[in-house]
Amino acid sequence: MQRKSFLHMPCPIARSLERVGEWWSMLIMRDALFGLRRFEEFQTSLGIAPNMLARRLNALVDAGLLERRRYSVRPPRDEYLPTAPGRDFRPVLIALLAFGNRHFAPEGKSVTIVDAQTGAEAEPIVVDRSTGRPIREPEFAWVSGPAAGERTRQRYGRRRQPDAAPPQETDRRISRRGKRK
Amino acid sequence: MQRKSFLHMPCPIARSLERVGEWWSMLIMRDALFGLRRFEEFQTSLGIAPNMLARRLNALVDAGLLERRRYSVRPPRDEYLPTAPGRDFRPVLIALLAFGNRHFAPEGKSVTIVDAQTGAEAEPIVVDRSTGRPIREPEFAWVSGPAAGERTRQRYGRRRQPDAAPPQETDRRISRRGKRK
Repeated sequence: MQRKSFLHMPCPIARSLERVGEWWSMLIMRDALFGLRRFEEFQTSLGIAPNMLARRLNALVDAGLLERRRYSVRPPRDEYLPTAPGRDFRPVLIALLAFGNRHFAPEGKSVTIVDAQTGAEAEPIVVDRSTGRPIREPEFAWVSGPAAGERTRQRYGRRRQPDAAPPQETDRRISRRGKRK
Repeated sequence: MQRKSFLHMPCPIARSLERVGEWWSMLIMRDALFGLRRFEEFQTSLGIAPNMLARRLNALVDAGLLERRRYSVRPPRDEYLPTAPGRDFRPVLIALLAFGNRHFAPEGKSVTIVDAQTGAEAEPIVVDRSTGRPIREPEFAWVSGPAAGERTRQRYGRRRQPDAAPPQETDRRISRRGKRK
């Protein structure tokens, strides 16, 4: 079954998912960033079918997140190494790890992140680099950027205010925003 | 085609992906956290087939990330609201947004995150909450936690040191680690 592509979408989340959002791809990136390199290593770690693994590795190479390197000529064998953009995927994995530990580990944590010196457990949160402030609403907002098209500008340019009048019916899709406590 | 489940994996990343890792699911969470609620709103935003959207919404409700609420009895109509765990998915989306903006927005940013007061653009990074230090290697390490099984302990308990002897062939899969500059 051919999945629908997200490539036409301007949203940076959709564009990331176009590269890493297929089933298995993020776990392959997890393993590659852990240091696994070879086809059989990924296969053993994941229990993934070889044809599926080959497809996913090719896609991650095409996306520029892994680099294929031949380590044996006879027989021909390749290994896969994270590129600089691939290494930059690590924060997404850390956010997924924290999310999983909080909500889907009823028996306790199997994997966690610690200070390498002290062993103290880290609690990953997302902050703004220059100010160190946690990125959350209402202190921070998602807005359209310079390359936004009309639809994105409409969507992100008109936030529903808590005390504003209800949006017009025709505007409902783009004016719903940020209903949070 | 039935995808292979990640539910048997102890890894918190795999467990998160079991809930949100299917094609479309994260974009549905993005829209739900943006404030969309109704079936037609998601459909219009995403251009997703109705049967696929229904399946994904059901899965996200089953995962406890969205809550279904009936807003009309005649005709019967439901809306979908993020639960507390669902709202906690936001950092993953922010990390994906930052990743996409850095690597897959050659024409410039379409969506970005700004300080709501000043309009200054934020640069999202992942830090440890209590110390504020960026979570990266080698300052922080991924280690097995109290609920880890034998395989996870082996994998995360034996990190390859930069100056260590090459691992034994039989240990290669679990001893490769952290090859970073």
